[in-house]
Amino acid sequence: MSEITATRPRSLTSTFDIPRPPGLTWYVQSQQPVGYEVSLTRGLLSPVNPVLARSVGADGRKPVRALVVVDRTVDELYGPGLRGYFEAWQVDAVWKVMPGDEETKTLEQVVEVTRAMTDMGILRRTERVVVVGGGVLMDVVGMAASLYRRGAPYVRVPTTLVGQVDAGVGVKTGVNHGTHKNRLGTYFAPEATLIDPEFLRTVEPRHIANGLAEIIKMALIKDAALFQLLEENVERITNHSLADCGAAMSEVVSRAIAGMLDELEPNLWEGVLERSVDYGHTFSPSLELRADPPLLHGEAVAVDMAVCVALAVGRGHLTEADAHRALALIAGFGLPLTHPVFTPELLEVGLADAVKHRDGRQRLPLTDSIGSCVFANDVTGPELARALDFVQAYADGADR
Amino acid sequence: MSEITATRPRSLTSTFDIPRPPGLTWYVQSQQPVGYEVSLTRGLLSPVNPVLARSVGADGRKPVRALVVVDRTVDELYGPGLRGYFEAWQVDAVWKVMPGDEETKTLEQVVEVTRAMTDMGILRRTERVVVVGGGVLMDVVGMAASLYRRGAPYVRVPTTLVGQVDAGVGVKTGVNHGTHKNRLGTYFAPEATLIDPEFLRTVEPRHIANGLAEIIKMALIKDAALFQLLEENVERITNHSLADCGAAMSEVVSRAIAGMLDELEPNLWEGVLERSVDYGHTFSPSLELRADPPLLHGEAVAVDMAVCVALAVGRGHLTEADAHRALALIAGFGLPLTHPVFTPELLEVGLADAVKHRDGRQRLPLTDSIGSCVFANDVTGPELARALDFVQAYADGADR
Repeated sequence: MSEITATRPRSLTSTFDIPRPPGLTWYVQSQQPVGYEVSLTRGLLSPVNPVLARSVGADGRKPVRALVVVDRTVDELYGPGLRGYFEAWQVDAVWKVMPGDEETKTLEQVVEVTRAMTDMGILRRTERVVVVGGGVLMDVVGMAASLYRRGAPYVRVPTTLVGQVDAGVGVKTGVNHGTHKNRLGTYFAPEATLIDPEFLRTVEPRHIANGLAEIIKMALIKDAALFQLLEENVERITNHSLADCGAAMSEVVSRAIAGMLDELEPNLWEGVLERSVDYGHTFSPSLELRADPPLLHGEAVAVDMAVCVALAVGRGHLTEADAHRALALIAGFGLPLTHPVFTPELLEVGLADAVKHRDGRQRLPLTDSIGSCVFANDVTGPELARALDFVQAYADGADR
Repeated sequence: MSEITATRPRSLTSTFDIPRPPGLTWYVQSQQPVGYEVSLTRGLLSPVNPVLARSVGADGRKPVRALVVVDRTVDELYGPGLRGYFEAWQVDAVWKVMPGDEETKTLEQVVEVTRAMTDMGILRRTERVVVVGGGVLMDVVGMAASLYRRGAPYVRVPTTLVGQVDAGVGVKTGVNHGTHKNRLGTYFAPEATLIDPEFLRTVEPRHIANGLAEIIKMALIKDAALFQLLEENVERITNHSLADCGAAMSEVVSRAIAGMLDELEPNLWEGVLERSVDYGHTFSPSLELRADPPLLHGEAVAVDMAVCVALAVGRGHLTEADAHRALALIAGFGLPLTHPVFTPELLEVGLADAVKHRDGRQRLPLTDSIGSCVFANDVTGPELARALDFVQAYADGADR
């Protein structure tokens, strides 16, 4: 035996050779490198544009396979264009059409995608899943890709503004569960996110405003120049001007994306729970769940941001004048500032939920003057009520 | 506008300021640090042993909460001990009993665990899930923890030999789906894996053999000394001797764990698909699915290893004498060497499945003499048939 016991396991830290109490302990340490690219490009479906083809490993000479998941709207509007593009690049695209609305953001839909991956016998690391659609489909397909054989590569092509500046550029995937939004999910980076503003031409104004809410968020918490740019262009920002991608519109979209990535990159797995990009996302999940008729995500975020603007005034982080500028910008894009179900009581419920999600503390991001962020941990019920009053007073004044 | 466009987004690499074709690209790069400890300790449920309490953040002075998930066997045998332990350490344990058999390794069971987490309103990062049970429950609860709010901390306490030397010490989670084993899952490290050989006292001989299959695997692919130790102790290794944890038994278990961690640590996310720990896991999934009456995982692995031993002989990687030693060791622990459904045709099906899982290549680990590993990519059907014949001839001879 002596010969054998003399050979200690190599390369692992063991504190004792024999596991008598207190025992033997190994420490496993590793680093997972994660990298992906976010490209803003135009004419993604033009047969001369190689970006999408390359993202699935196609070079136009030898055939490759890919699973292409699209939502119904994309199938109708861009189905022929996508099919033509893939044919031109010799991509044998297995086509899967799915619903893309919030009600179908479920584990069942995730399983449906993994079933399609199994059915085509997708190769684990080489063949890609491409998801073309809105934020819901991004999250569902991203989660499916992350679970299939514990991770398969996928490419995101967000077609809505909120997808292009928010849901599409990060690494979060997820589905709703029970009455809880995004209760189940993963952090799973795509190989690439490809953003073509041309898709915005077919996005309705209400959904453009939905995306603008996230852009306003970035402006309020970290980019005063973006805020000014939005103020100057309130009238000019439309689906068509964004799709045309002139200098100002490019600047709006690229600053929003750059700001988002700048916040995400050092905190991809949310090791730090003080996240400025949670701005407008503290009370809004409770509102999204209860609003009837339903609100879009960005609309709920807008109402949440309005409260946070008022909270910042109450705490001396924001002047009343700047608060009015912020509220005017939100309203200027046709986004709501108030909602009947948004009572002080509901705000307290929402905050309590957020506290659970943020591991026991409020960690409530507030603007510290426009373009910068501070976190609060001691917001009280009466303070929430006063904030609602502030917003209501502004909204009443704006109505007159 | 000039003032604003002059302010480039900071800290992100952009190749162009304005997204005209070829566009603007950001590269996101990050590293996720992952660390966990694997402790081999005795008397985990003794009220004076702080290891389990500390793993859920308890110090015995102020109360903490934890969700404790156990399988039915553990509930019966160790329920009172666990409850008493947690009471002594002021751990307010929310108790959840689940089935732990292979048929319940499903997504539904994962959802069931996340529902329990929601019901108790578990804090996202501070409060822990503790899973005490066999390999199936480890995988199910690990997957639930990884999905709940995109990741909640959990602690593994494997109570079976296969859990203690294999399923419990890595970072894989997963469930079966359709007819596919572990088709859906995640890589998600526990905070800690706590291994107490005392649990083995209540494990039946067939399940001890099940775990020994994975230990034989480690011996064959990377630890000649462990192989010799197993040979010398074939008669002595029982559930009781393992639980007693004398020098030789400690050596067997700790070498198996150390070897496993040594292979896993540099490749936690399986970036490299040539994995020596896949030894015995190429054909066995197909066998596990088809065997009726069902085989235990380790039994299917044993039959797979026997074929691989024979393949190594055919390729000149192993002498016939060493092959016979390997087959004798497998059989010596009461593990099967052959199975009626294991035909050349089924082996080809299994290999084709493995090729998909290994991204288009066989990457078949074989012993390169006992204690070392080599990978094959060109194994043929006739070769598989000859390997089966070799094993059958040995088995027939051993029967006489």
